Amino acid sequence: MGWLEQVKWNDDGLVPVITQEFETKQVLTLAWLNKEALKLCAETGHAVYWSRSRQKLWHKGEQSGHQQIIKSIRLDCDNDAVLLEVVQKGGIACHTGRHHCFFNKLEEGRWQATEPVLKDPKEIYS
Amino acid sequence: MGWLEQVKWNDDGLVPVITQEFETKQVLTLAWLNKEALKLCAETGHAVYWSRSRQKLWHKGEQSGHQQIIKSIRLDCDNDAVLLEVVQKGGIACHTGRHHCFFNKLEEGRWQATEPVLKDPKEIYS
Repeated sequence: MGWLEQVKWNDDGLVPVITQEFETKQVLTLAWLNKEALKLCAETGHAVYWSRSRQKLWHKGEQSGHQQIIKSIRLDCDNDAVLLEVVQKGGIACHTGRHHCFFNKLEEGRWQATEPVLKDPKEIYS
Repeated sequence: MGWLEQVKWNDDGLVPVITQEFETKQVLTLAWLNKEALKLCAETGHAVYWSRSRQKLWHKGEQSGHQQIIKSIRLDCDNDAVLLEVVQKGGIACHTGRHHCFFNKLEEGRWQATEPVLKDPKEIYS
């Protein structure tokens, strides 16, 4: 059985993928992969995801220029989650213009935005 | 709307949760939360997950003693993924007796186990 077949794809043919910044070890995003996206990750060395909202492959950085260069691809003990270590071009992984997506921190019973916006999304996607 | 209601629960009432070690920033596990589990995480300060295989709450470490003390709870930009920062008791998060679950690394077209087993699972769960 090939390495792609060893992954436990869910009923939609997807697995969740955690993307972590290689230098800082910051968790940048949680996204999803289908078989083709994971194959492209391995072949091209650039992060490619499956966009559930747009229902198509999403070459990370194709619009923003914020590509992710893959340093390693890992699979967990249950074969149903992937971890990518990447170099984040431009230092911005989140579509809100922040370094990473996990900027809402639970404090005193509320989600509080804790990370600065580094670049206006209007500039990123113009 | 309360902070628990702001989370976008999927059709099964779950969200994926990334658990990261506070000191080392190592990604330990990807697991799942339902509303009750996330509430218990916030109330008790200990990681509680929803076990999809056993279909019940899973108080991490209840059998193994490898509890996780929560340092922060974060939600991503789309409100559909959670990140926990934890202190991992015993230094073992994975049921295989390894530090973390992402020990299968893609190398030359194969998943290669790269992390040492720190404790025999038979000892952990006896």
